[in-house]
Amino acid sequence: MTVERATKPHWVYAFGGGRADGAAHLKNLLGGKGANLAEMSALGLPVPPGFTITTEVCAAFYENGAKFPAGLTAEVDAALAHIGTSVGATFGDTTTPLLVSVRSGARASMPGMMDTILNLGLNDATVAALATRSGDKRFAYDSYRRFITMYSNVVLDVDHGVFEDILENHKNLNGQMSDTDLGPDDWLDIIAAYKQAVLAATGKPFPQSTHDQLWGAIGAVFGSWQNDRAISYRRMYDIPDSWGTAVNVQAMVFGNRGETSATGVAFTRNPSTGERAVYGEFLVNAQGEDVVAGIRTPQPLTEAARIEAGETLPSLEALMPATFGELSAIFARLEGHYRDMQDIEFTIQEGKLWMLQTRSGKRTAKAALKIAVDMVAEGVLKPEEGLLRIEPSSLDQLLHPTIDPKAHKVVITQGLPASPGAASGEIVFDSNEAKARKAAGHSVILVREETSPEDIEGMAAAAGILTARGGMTSHAAVVARGMGRPCVCGAGALRIDKVAGVVNVLGRQLKRGTIITIDGATGEVIEGQVRMREPELSGDFGTVMAWADKVRRLGVRANADTPRDAKAARDFGAEGIGLCRTEHMFFEKDRILAVREMICADDEAGRRRALAKILPMQRADFARLFEIMAGLPVTIRLLDPPLHEFLPLAGAEVDAVAKELGVDPAKLAGRIAELHEVNPMLGFRGCRLAIRYPEICEMQARAIFEAAVAVAKASGKPVTPEVMIPLVAYRTEYDALAKVIRATAKAVETETGAALTYTIGTMIELPRAALKADEIAAGAEGAEFFSFGTNDLTQTCLGLSRDDAAPILGNYVERGIFEIDPFVSIDQEGVGALVEIGVARGRAARPGLKIGICGEHGGDPASVAFFHRVGLDYVSCSPFRVPVARLAAAQAALRGDAPKSEA
Amino acid sequence: MTVERATKPHWVYAFGGGRADGAAHLKNLLGGKGANLAEMSALGLPVPPGFTITTEVCAAFYENGAKFPAGLTAEVDAALAHIGTSVGATFGDTTTPLLVSVRSGARASMPGMMDTILNLGLNDATVAALATRSGDKRFAYDSYRRFITMYSNVVLDVDHGVFEDILENHKNLNGQMSDTDLGPDDWLDIIAAYKQAVLAATGKPFPQSTHDQLWGAIGAVFGSWQNDRAISYRRMYDIPDSWGTAVNVQAMVFGNRGETSATGVAFTRNPSTGERAVYGEFLVNAQGEDVVAGIRTPQPLTEAARIEAGETLPSLEALMPATFGELSAIFARLEGHYRDMQDIEFTIQEGKLWMLQTRSGKRTAKAALKIAVDMVAEGVLKPEEGLLRIEPSSLDQLLHPTIDPKAHKVVITQGLPASPGAASGEIVFDSNEAKARKAAGHSVILVREETSPEDIEGMAAAAGILTARGGMTSHAAVVARGMGRPCVCGAGALRIDKVAGVVNVLGRQLKRGTIITIDGATGEVIEGQVRMREPELSGDFGTVMAWADKVRRLGVRANADTPRDAKAARDFGAEGIGLCRTEHMFFEKDRILAVREMICADDEAGRRRALAKILPMQRADFARLFEIMAGLPVTIRLLDPPLHEFLPLAGAEVDAVAKELGVDPAKLAGRIAELHEVNPMLGFRGCRLAIRYPEICEMQARAIFEAAVAVAKASGKPVTPEVMIPLVAYRTEYDALAKVIRATAKAVETETGAALTYTIGTMIELPRAALKADEIAAGAEGAEFFSFGTNDLTQTCLGLSRDDAAPILGNYVERGIFEIDPFVSIDQEGVGALVEIGVARGRAARPGLKIGICGEHGGDPASVAFFHRVGLDYVSCSPFRVPVARLAAAQAALRGDAPKSEA
Repeated sequence: MTVERATKPHWVYAFGGGRADGAAHLKNLLGGKGANLAEMSALGLPVPPGFTITTEVCAAFYENGAKFPAGLTAEVDAALAHIGTSVGATFGDTTTPLLVSVRSGARASMPGMMDTILNLGLNDATVAALATRSGDKRFAYDSYRRFITMYSNVVLDVDHGVFEDILENHKNLNGQMSDTDLGPDDWLDIIAAYKQAVLAATGKPFPQSTHDQLWGAIGAVFGSWQNDRAISYRRMYDIPDSWGTAVNVQAMVFGNRGETSATGVAFTRNPSTGERAVYGEFLVNAQGEDVVAGIRTPQPLTEAARIEAGETLPSLEALMPATFGELSAIFARLEGHYRDMQDIEFTIQEGKLWMLQTRSGKRTAKAALKIAVDMVAEGVLKPEEGLLRIEPSSLDQLLHPTIDPKAHKVVITQGLPASPGAASGEIVFDSNEAKARKAAGHSVILVREETSPEDIEGMAAAAGILTARGGMTSHAAVVARGMGRPCVCGAGALRIDKVAGVVNVLGRQLKRGTIITIDGATGEVIEGQVRMREPELSGDFGTVMAWADKVRRLGVRANADTPRDAKAARDFGAEGIGLCRTEHMFFEKDRILAVREMICADDEAGRRRALAKILPMQRADFARLFEIMAGLPVTIRLLDPPLHEFLPLAGAEVDAVAKELGVDPAKLAGRIAELHEVNPMLGFRGCRLAIRYPEICEMQARAIFEAAVAVAKASGKPVTPEVMIPLVAYRTEYDALAKVIRATAKAVETETGAALTYTIGTMIELPRAALKADEIAAGAEGAEFFSFGTNDLTQTCLGLSRDDAAPILGNYVERGIFEIDPFVSIDQEGVGALVEIGVARGRAARPGLKIGICGEHGGDPASVAFFHRVGLDYVSCSPFRVPVARLAAAQAALRGDAPKSEA
Repeated sequence: MTVERATKPHWVYAFGGGRADGAAHLKNLLGGKGANLAEMSALGLPVPPGFTITTEVCAAFYENGAKFPAGLTAEVDAALAHIGTSVGATFGDTTTPLLVSVRSGARASMPGMMDTILNLGLNDATVAALATRSGDKRFAYDSYRRFITMYSNVVLDVDHGVFEDILENHKNLNGQMSDTDLGPDDWLDIIAAYKQAVLAATGKPFPQSTHDQLWGAIGAVFGSWQNDRAISYRRMYDIPDSWGTAVNVQAMVFGNRGETSATGVAFTRNPSTGERAVYGEFLVNAQGEDVVAGIRTPQPLTEAARIEAGETLPSLEALMPATFGELSAIFARLEGHYRDMQDIEFTIQEGKLWMLQTRSGKRTAKAALKIAVDMVAEGVLKPEEGLLRIEPSSLDQLLHPTIDPKAHKVVITQGLPASPGAASGEIVFDSNEAKARKAAGHSVILVREETSPEDIEGMAAAAGILTARGGMTSHAAVVARGMGRPCVCGAGALRIDKVAGVVNVLGRQLKRGTIITIDGATGEVIEGQVRMREPELSGDFGTVMAWADKVRRLGVRANADTPRDAKAARDFGAEGIGLCRTEHMFFEKDRILAVREMICADDEAGRRRALAKILPMQRADFARLFEIMAGLPVTIRLLDPPLHEFLPLAGAEVDAVAKELGVDPAKLAGRIAELHEVNPMLGFRGCRLAIRYPEICEMQARAIFEAAVAVAKASGKPVTPEVMIPLVAYRTEYDALAKVIRATAKAVETETGAALTYTIGTMIELPRAALKADEIAAGAEGAEFFSFGTNDLTQTCLGLSRDDAAPILGNYVERGIFEIDPFVSIDQEGVGALVEIGVARGRAARPGLKIGICGEHGGDPASVAFFHRVGLDYVSCSPFRVPVARLAAAQAALRGDAPKSEA
């Protein structure tokens, strides 16, 4: 990428002192942190002066082999001078040295994923000046040793264990217990040892040039965009690699200058419940990272919160009432300005308040709903704006089960209710363990002293997270809420011995693998597995869904095979069944025998005998679904899977089944061998089954139509089944089965005297079907509806078997070959192109053709937006994804993408 | 279908008496037989008068549920009256009755597949008149009983065994040995018994109304278009169901009116060798069907042929010199008129010659070449016309091995050299046996008394055909030549006991399953399996190929993995290698161990150790190919198949291989289990392998480039390898490996000091690749060439696994769902649409992009025509199909279809 500008190159945007080059809307260029620092600065809020090096520099840096673009140095020097003027200090000056922080800041928040360096600008000379000017040698030397540690680790790649060992060693030799026991001379000794260690590890002395320090730090922050944690986080949240990060260089302020100094984080509303009350924590005499890292358990901001938590340490409100007042006013101003709940960082240096960050706060789905509904009620937002503030996929959280209030439970201990929902699982102690057990099909609870960005994948793999330390804004809490994982934080009674694989809690020993339950709504940690209950959807949920239903154009149906699914689908607002997979009924215990009998039959008569046994059961299944759906459309797909799926695999099971069927085991084994396929996904399945054995189609059609007649008669309301033929590639296939279905309908009409209304359509799940959609839909007897089966369409379009994809996908996402798993979010350019072709050609042949989609993608927000854009009539997804799809469809409609024509 | 005409309905075209409503160019409407009868009639040749009911009537008949269109009756009656006027007889008249034949006649010749009825118009009254007027009661009654048999069987569906039994019974009761022992009264008794049998079988008397007879026969002939034999023949020769057949009704002429009567068939040139000499056979005092059925061994037409065959029975030339002269003149006239070798049927009734049929004669490939070359030399055809007269797929025959003249052979007996080429196989006695043994992987020789249309599938399954009876124009001979199967006919020494499963020949007993060899060029039947030799391509072949190369636009390459293949490819005129599958090299005994070692390696270092062992072998392979191809392009595909294909399956083999590899059998078994896939076709293969293990790509690229450098150096000629990446779906995949290839090329250049010229391209074998062809080809580093892998593209586009397709395809072709196996001839509308999209998009991104195809379809003439039409640069096929592709490409160019733009 070459970045050229019409005016003079402008890689650096300054802010501070009541003015700013940038603004909040420049988030893509300045990153979220930089843009909001500029915005706050322009608002006249107290922001330490600084500047942002843009994301374009990051892109240019990677394009040019980790070299900075020309002109950057000059711009940085100028901006640095400007900071100096503003604070009355000079970078590198040995009398009044300017110290700065160097922080990352991407377009999307990636908390803790990239690198940060504080106290930059210290060297042997400037530290002396700092000591003199602050009158606090201990503070100066402590800052210097912290800087050496941080810089050496981040920029020079020196293991931070080296520094810990030196410190521990010093304390041991001098009989010192804690860091507070160390005086200035101790720190001087330690600094000398640190510098020695850096020389030994890198072959070069620790850089004394503040200029070199700065450029080293800037390079490291840009470089950290490509560290493993950041890549893995981006993968998880679908953040493109190409966005890059900005770098923010800002004058240091210190929350660790004594008892009149503090640092804190706050949310303008409760990010867990959405309640309208400031929610935050602070630490006296601490630096910012200390709060987020969760090393010390912080104090609440407000008195109300302190009382509610039963906390004894004073609140900020009580401790520094004036500053608290100033802060509260700023919270209100920022929320009003951004018209969204804000997540804010601040520092108080010797009584003076500094704003370090504001951004839209991450929140639970419950909070997102409440905040949106409240803000609409407050007149701050319109309902359409409220809708766009809610992340559709977060709604999943609401549908999580919670602990049944009537269940018996033995509470082991309690922590902070950091992320709602309840989860049961085996105790694991690290990320790898979590991933491995999860992969082996187990539910796990990740139990950690505290979590760090390295734990991100383990947290994703875990059903819930439990930490011994850290508050409601600790890493664990923030990340868990973002992921929708139940989380209990700061359960201080836990004593974790990771090596022994045991956690001791109030005299009780819980070993690795022991099952516990956590309740993220109460903070309770409970023995064993506790009975859960299905979620109750709150009033806010209903309000938001009503808004969504008003604006969305896409219909939302559910994939449901059983009465239970169908009921859930209706509860979640599905407008019909988009996919009823009849084979799931075939697997049920009472009918599998008849199915097997059919498969083993020697001739049509034998198959018909077996099918006659299945007919009444299928009819009853369909009748039940029609009753529940009460007139809503029900799309029933004819038998789809390869027949061998209904047969036992091998060995003793074959003998047992043969006995049950009353056939020779050798014959059954022969049939199994005969039905074995090299690539069953591409084999004898779908419509191919019924084209060979039309009597299967006939039985299923009869079951559907007889059930429709019976339910219509009983309910007095019409039942309009949609009969769907799977795996069609050729119009001739469609015709062969449509003929059987129509003849069966006619027969049922004659026998019952009832008139049937029904439609026949097809899955579009093979590339050929999409390409020949016009032929398949054409004419009076063509397909009356399409439903894109995007699971199979993805498998065939990409030549990638879902069953075999896991190791390939892992490698591909890791290597950046796929930006995202195409089975989770539709591959819009490839598979999507086939969908577009199918829609255009199908509608060209049959104007107004009803078209839906019933693959897993129906519940993925990005995919739903795509399906809206290409003009589908509805999406169908699993019942629990229906609310997600409703909201995603509404957002797609609000964002107003018009259907595209064929590419 | 509704057939409407601007002028008055015209369902019937009359001919005869030197005039005709139709003509040869109306073949689609009148069928081949009808069109040519009209043409001969218009030429003034002696054609018995008659009329043709058009193929449109057939279509209307099937559309209307086996009812004839309105107006047909009147037209048929008028045409019938016209015949009567012409021959001085009246249909159904009891004094001068007109007798007619009713014959099928489709657009393409389908010999013997549909029904024919002779002597129609006979009933109890007209037979008496025939007896009186012919003065030959025996002839009259024999004709009547033949008519009853034929009509009852074809129209009334009475088993002909019934009639045979009555006849046998009569002869037994009366001590008569042969049909010639029976007098008029015997036939009268038999006729009475026949009529009784018809009444018993059908519940109705044999129809005495000649009008009913006629319409029954017309309906039956139309109906026979859908009989199993006809359907199966159409399937074999790709004749669309929609074509339908015409029906020809024609005044009867009799070749069985005594010693001055005869019937015969002739080819104007030798259909086996192409030699310019009349080639034909006749039978004195016989009806036409007798010659074709091969029941009596017929006599040669010419003296020259009689002498050559050592035949003692006189030739027609000797027996009826005047008629022979007339006939010879007609042969010359017809060949000149049609400008093609003709296959002619004629009858001589009491010295008067009648022409019953002419059509372009089926011929062997050898004959086709010779006839084309001769006719061009004779000035009859231009080379371009000559090219269009040769069926490309027939060239396969020329490439069949023949018996090595130096081989030791024990000749058992000799028959007629009916279809060239030699074949060895197990003796089987019927079609089902032939199909079953073939399916089990055996080569079989179908040994029959004579073949009939029912044997068509068995003949296709057999490697060769041997009959005891029948001549060079018998069913077996004609069909075998058409199919390119070696055939020996009329080996009279064979005594076949099908029930015992034994054939006795000159005292020798050959049981079912015994291996024999037949030589279709000499007529020899030989003991056991005889050494064959590769075909020598004659001068005519070279001439025709030179014509083809001059006109074709498509390049033709070969798929070749071994030096032997590469040599064959060059011999057959390939212009390069379009696909070298490197994995075939991996399977060779000396390297499979290293390949397995690589697969079992725990890390990259282990894989590199194993790959280092493979490198010199691969390099030598490529060097050999480059040497043989001497500067022609060579496209090398990187490793493609799933790794488990290189590992043993299970059991003892695993232990043996583990021992060989020096690894724990449990570890090997584990690796096998790990690599097991549900759908390997859609799994860890193609570029996915090398993206995970780039060192494989690196080794292969190194082998290619080092070989290129070495061969270029040794030969002094440049070697330009084309490196092809398989199974690409995403540009990112292409880039990942192209980068490795380029880096390896650079390394080899540095190490050797040589400059490399090479291109990198990709297979387009997944729908996504075709859809994203623009992205894959774009930019300086995009794919430099495409090769469509239509095998995999067909599998994914249709969702049909080739390995599992057989039972599905069988059912589908049978049910008319597929017109043709899409793995044999490309599915132009589906897979072809993807090819068109890929071509259009690829060339849009990279103008002039070189595009080929390397699937099996590259050797299928219809597919080659398609690839020409969509503008590919070349096709690549197996070496033995190269001549087919060259000719097909030339024909496509001559037919002048312009490349289509994207649909």
